Amino acid sequence: MTRVLYELAGAEEDRRFSPYCWRVRMALAHKGLDVDTRPWRFVEKPNIAFSGQDKVPVLIDEGRAIADSWAIATYLEDAYPDAPALFGGDKARHLARFVNNWADGVLQPALLKTVIGDIFDHVHESDREYFRQSREARFGTTIESFRNERDRWFGEFRAVLAPLRATLSAQPYLGGDSQNYADYIVFGAFQFARCISPFPLLAADDPISLWRARLLESFDHLAGRAKGYSVPGTPS
Amino acid sequence: MTRVLYELAGAEEDRRFSPYCWRVRMALAHKGLDVDTRPWRFVEKPNIAFSGQDKVPVLIDEGRAIADSWAIATYLEDAYPDAPALFGGDKARHLARFVNNWADGVLQPALLKTVIGDIFDHVHESDREYFRQSREARFGTTIESFRNERDRWFGEFRAVLAPLRATLSAQPYLGGDSQNYADYIVFGAFQFARCISPFPLLAADDPISLWRARLLESFDHLAGRAKGYSVPGTPS
Repeated sequence: MTRVLYELAGAEEDRRFSPYCWRVRMALAHKGLDVDTRPWRFVEKPNIAFSGQDKVPVLIDEGRAIADSWAIATYLEDAYPDAPALFGGDKARHLARFVNNWADGVLQPALLKTVIGDIFDHVHESDREYFRQSREARFGTTIESFRNERDRWFGEFRAVLAPLRATLSAQPYLGGDSQNYADYIVFGAFQFARCISPFPLLAADDPISLWRARLLESFDHLAGRAKGYSVPGTPS
Repeated sequence: MTRVLYELAGAEEDRRFSPYCWRVRMALAHKGLDVDTRPWRFVEKPNIAFSGQDKVPVLIDEGRAIADSWAIATYLEDAYPDAPALFGGDKARHLARFVNNWADGVLQPALLKTVIGDIFDHVHESDREYFRQSREARFGTTIESFRNERDRWFGEFRAVLAPLRATLSAQPYLGGDSQNYADYIVFGAFQFARCISPFPLLAADDPISLWRARLLESFDHLAGRAKGYSVPGTPS
């Protein structure tokens, strides 16, 4: 039975820019599981109504539909216990949830404010009105105001990176000597940015930058080959 | 050979308020290891010079002196592998380092600004000048200015708690179904506050508050019995 992943796509069908979908793509690759991806746009909510909710990623595996990146990751870990571990034990799985909540609640919002104008420039034409209205309602201000104050938001984003940088200065991956799902959680944010924004988020010698480069290269350059902007230290 | 831990003490010898020392006290209890604690004040740097540095916690175990809470925790895990695991595997140990960096770089600074006046009120007389000078130099402002703007700093502290609260809403401990060293890292901050401040940091029904109450009770109320202020849901 074919495994299918619905992924957010931009103006071009192959610009797959959702940070949450990238977590799942990396997790599937880590498990060595093939997948057929389907491009999806924000306004195509009816296309994933079968999942009982209206957001991607949605994975269809063995006839089951699973939504939400965390739920998909834990499903994959439990459904494919003989494939390489995404977490590496019960304690690591639970600690990864803290990383997940930090990424969702702290890292992503700070990054979103920094690059929201770039997202708007890359969403599909059919999504532009939806994207503007929903994001401007959420933040109570315009996309243009974020563009105009990018320096300020970038400063907040940089401040938020401190515990990540301290950790990646002490060990190659959040998972230690090798990457695990916690790395994919955080990497998703940087890959999201790379897909839609030329704005340089990291200095080339930043430990986070070196970690990102290794993840871009992993799984035969799965993330590095994806449509996006080049980042320092990696081929475009 | 007696195991000894040098711990920061306040005006009273039994007011042990260092968040980093509490991480170690909880780790030792988790491992089932007895320890003799020695009160130490900021100005007593010569007393721990044997450790090659000037901060507590300093643990002396089997004739070795180990400083820094993270170094002590990983030492204990490796030196006592048959005692209950502090981390629960290599991946969990590395993910706990992210929690450690988040606590040190985000949680502790936000909390410190909220309660710094209360610390000043509880440090030993011999430490008062040192504490004021060192902290005012670090922050570039006075202890009184933090007191006067407590609402603002408390607001920042509350914002910082979001990923912790989200995690403890989904699972009883950072370590999952049972507490591990990641819990002690974060708990140290709340126990530090309890030791020196009557200021209520958490609502009684906050998932963080319920988690704190369970940790205060653990190991025969080791932390709950320590000199400090009562918190909601626990006996004083």
